[in-house]
Amino acid sequence: MKKSFGAKTLVFPTPVWVVGSYDQQGKPNVMTVAWGGICCSQPPCVAVSLRKATYTYGNIVKWKAFTVNVPSEIHCREADYIGTASGRNTDKFAATGLTPIRSDLVDAPYVREFPLVLECRLLRTVEIGLHTQFIGEIVDVKADESVLSTDRDDSALGAGGLPDAAKVKPILYSPEMGTYHGIGRNLGRAYSIGKTIGKKE
Amino acid sequence: MKKSFGAKTLVFPTPVWVVGSYDQQGKPNVMTVAWGGICCSQPPCVAVSLRKATYTYGNIVKWKAFTVNVPSEIHCREADYIGTASGRNTDKFAATGLTPIRSDLVDAPYVREFPLVLECRLLRTVEIGLHTQFIGEIVDVKADESVLSTDRDDSALGAGGLPDAAKVKPILYSPEMGTYHGIGRNLGRAYSIGKTIGKKE
Repeated sequence: MKKSFGAKTLVFPTPVWVVGSYDQQGKPNVMTVAWGGICCSQPPCVAVSLRKATYTYGNIVKWKAFTVNVPSEIHCREADYIGTASGRNTDKFAATGLTPIRSDLVDAPYVREFPLVLECRLLRTVEIGLHTQFIGEIVDVKADESVLSTDRDDSALGAGGLPDAAKVKPILYSPEMGTYHGIGRNLGRAYSIGKTIGKKE
Repeated sequence: MKKSFGAKTLVFPTPVWVVGSYDQQGKPNVMTVAWGGICCSQPPCVAVSLRKATYTYGNIVKWKAFTVNVPSEIHCREADYIGTASGRNTDKFAATGLTPIRSDLVDAPYVREFPLVLECRLLRTVEIGLHTQFIGEIVDVKADESVLSTDRDDSALGAGGLPDAAKVKPILYSPEMGTYHGIGRNLGRAYSIGKTIGKKE
């Protein structure tokens, strides 16, 4: 028998992603979101939801671009701060000491110190309610060499392998409880560990 | 200097959620998704993206409802299997031994054995590309008593406290690498641990 909690945005995991954008004057800004996720494989798209009241909302509408920056757990304090201050009256890059890098591909800055970034072109705007969902087409994914897998099994892509979640160490947000967690142990390979279930039938 | 990986759905974390639905004959089905996230606070909404080719796609179109079930890491094998088999030719509840429970609120079943479930009414359908995004209004969240926080600080909601991510033990999926991870250590409280950054300015 499950206990009922009512109509709430209460689910796990939700990500801690830092959205990069330029303001109306072209000044770089960042904000933290937990409402988002991949929403399409082809074209590759990621969705982030923002309230209209946010500074970033107007930025994305103007420039039709944003970045999704994945902070590592060592930057959890910065990510938390970026989620509470507003770019309207604060230079969050200056306050945190993080560095904006100009994207060659889209009109939005990304964060040098965060190990994994997605550069996105605004594809669709979906008005839902309090939040507006921005669907961004991912035009490139960039990662630091230091977070690439060196596991032989994972090097199909070639030199250096793929970005490894265990090295990126993304942050998870727990709605309602309001806590952050790191990622934990490897539970196994997808499309593989469940195979025996199918076979026992 | 970051390395470029091209236009890919490569970001962390993505969730491992099991979507419950009834088929055209009212038989319960489940499928696993990693493309999804919360997309609005008011009304509370969650988005999941599916290919049209999936069995669940037609189910949601017919019943205008679905559930999002959060498996705990002990059910990682089942979640993996549910993501590979199709309800078109398999009874995935029977194969896994999981139990469908009829929702009183929406026309979709949820999974008894998974500790956290969201019952959703289809609010919007967004055609993006290969994937269609279903935006569901969350009409109720249900959780097992065993995953509720007993921390005094978290009991503001009353008896039993809130669902605790550390007890739910949700699963994370790593795109491209194709691995699953559990959640890790508590990194701190949101809207709190970053406060000192604002203050040093």
